[in-house]
Amino acid sequence: MQFDAEVSGHKVVMDATPEVGGNDIGARPKQLMMAALAGCTGMDVISMLKKMRVKVDEFDIDIEADMTEEHPKHYYKVHIIYKFKGQDLDEAKLKKAVDLSQDRYCGVSFTYRQTMDLTYEIVIL
Amino acid sequence: MQFDAEVSGHKVVMDATPEVGGNDIGARPKQLMMAALAGCTGMDVISMLKKMRVKVDEFDIDIEADMTEEHPKHYYKVHIIYKFKGQDLDEAKLKKAVDLSQDRYCGVSFTYRQTMDLTYEIVIL
Repeated sequence: MQFDAEVSGHKVVMDATPEVGGNDIGARPKQLMMAALAGCTGMDVISMLKKMRVKVDEFDIDIEADMTEEHPKHYYKVHIIYKFKGQDLDEAKLKKAVDLSQDRYCGVSFTYRQTMDLTYEIVIL
Repeated sequence: MQFDAEVSGHKVVMDATPEVGGNDIGARPKQLMMAALAGCTGMDVISMLKKMRVKVDEFDIDIEADMTEEHPKHYYKVHIIYKFKGQDLDEAKLKKAVDLSQDRYCGVSFTYRQTMDLTYEIVIL
């Protein structure tokens, strides 16, 4: 069940769990969809914050996703948690960057929103 | 622009191109969506072929995808090429496995089909 993908010249290994015949050598393909989402919106946000001269010390994104029980099993509900850490962070600017990514720039969010209930929140640590 | 994703306990590195401020250390997030697609349908197909007792020597999946020019930049057209290599491969069985993945099992295909013109073909080498 192991598949090695070549993505932008980089190797990405995927594999299934032992329960379905895999060896857990790599990521589950569907969960990789969520990595794509985090990376897409994360790059948007951090580049907009750079333009706004907002300095962030740490930036993490958690994604909570619910999958249907029936085939074709697919995510139908996704919640993105943007977690920022830094000195005197301007919450309005963080919100602006995140909103812009979600409303205008992130093509992965745009795609997923057509079939998923996609919500998000900002947490300042 | 580098983001390290933890996906099913495995690290997946994403990064942007130098043109947009990245260092090309890892995969582009949107292209990762296509790896997820290949992995999802690939695992379906290979496990169905195993049940059908079809022995495949090599199995590759190529994906050709077109992205919009306008924001939010997203894939709108995707063509999957399933490439099989093996002795006396039964084309009808290969087609059955691929069709079942596309029509019933692959949740990534299901999701993408809502916003993308998704087509596929089978090539026996």
